[in-house]
Amino acid sequence: MPKVRVHNMTISLDGFSAGENQRIDAPFGDGVGWGDELHAWFVEASRDAAAGKTGTDVDYYVRGDENIGATIMGRNMFGPQRGPWQDESWKGWWGENPPYHHDVFVLTHHPRPKLEMDGGTTFHFTDDTPERVLERAFEAADGKDVRIGGGAAVVQQYLRAGLIDELHLVIAPLLIGRGERLLDNVAEGVEGYRVAEMVSSSSVTHVMLVRR
Amino acid sequence: MPKVRVHNMTISLDGFSAGENQRIDAPFGDGVGWGDELHAWFVEASRDAAAGKTGTDVDYYVRGDENIGATIMGRNMFGPQRGPWQDESWKGWWGENPPYHHDVFVLTHHPRPKLEMDGGTTFHFTDDTPERVLERAFEAADGKDVRIGGGAAVVQQYLRAGLIDELHLVIAPLLIGRGERLLDNVAEGVEGYRVAEMVSSSSVTHVMLVRR
Repeated sequence: MPKVRVHNMTISLDGFSAGENQRIDAPFGDGVGWGDELHAWFVEASRDAAAGKTGTDVDYYVRGDENIGATIMGRNMFGPQRGPWQDESWKGWWGENPPYHHDVFVLTHHPRPKLEMDGGTTFHFTDDTPERVLERAFEAADGKDVRIGGGAAVVQQYLRAGLIDELHLVIAPLLIGRGERLLDNVAEGVEGYRVAEMVSSSSVTHVMLVRR
Repeated sequence: MPKVRVHNMTISLDGFSAGENQRIDAPFGDGVGWGDELHAWFVEASRDAAAGKTGTDVDYYVRGDENIGATIMGRNMFGPQRGPWQDESWKGWWGENPPYHHDVFVLTHHPRPKLEMDGGTTFHFTDDTPERVLERAFEAADGKDVRIGGGAAVVQQYLRAGLIDELHLVIAPLLIGRGERLLDNVAEGVEGYRVAEMVSSSSVTHVMLVRR
């Protein structure tokens, strides 16, 4: 059976996946820059993977792309705009050839036409229910797994619905103090999971949650 | 200079040091039994330490007692009663010979006479400010360090005041979902700290926070 998986979701020691006041010039909020402390391990792992290196961080990083046939993400992960689209020229943070190479479903209250990018990535903008979007993603994935890409609110939504099979968390050794907590608002959602792996590298701690 | 230290503070993967509804027959709240998943590592480490074994968990466990001359704890860590003392026969969770063997300052809005136990432990009940209690504890410690024993609210109080020098957290591989979060209500308090150690054993992940 194809699975619903979350990978490389990085949180601070105090549980935040982003700081306060996320916006276009600070997509991860106050005090959290992309590639800075919180995601430094990810940037390094992606470089090491491209260079053919192995190791704890690289191995987990690489698992995140294996056997994924479609991705679901929140609108805030696609871009910084809120409310009705002011500007449809925005095509995501990733340039003309995004690193997905499959169908990506963007959850939004404001649908817009699909966006076909180079390299096989197509962004679909949908206000369907999370359950219905998951069905569409499984169809698009054609037997492969579906990845919930983030951000925190979308992961929470699927956790609450009990729809996630595997959740790979990465704890980075820093404190953010305030912001968006990944494991918030999921009280009942967490009951169905157990920790299958907890491993520290020299940079971070990897945790793999799976169904009980 | 003697230090203010916190040791062996165990939290779940989602950051809780206790569940909801802490009470006499469930001092760690709903679904969290002493010695169960959350503190299993601690119980095992204390047995292993008594048996003279070594290892990551035992070594961290043992560090928590080294060079400590006095302890400060919250009233809820001393016992389950709330409000004015109904029953002064309660002498803590630890029996006639508590494992402190030094002065222990219990923060409470309801002072009562000190309690001299076997083995050198004396409980002092005080409604002094946290700063003043720390001064008294340093006097009692006579050159050694002072440990903030817990629970979460007291650790938060001293973190907010910027008075903690070292904080040893232990992340246990389970999700609690709701309850008392250790690293809550300490937004500014965390800014002065950095992660000096993050190490997984086969059971838990140890994190040592120190001042920047």
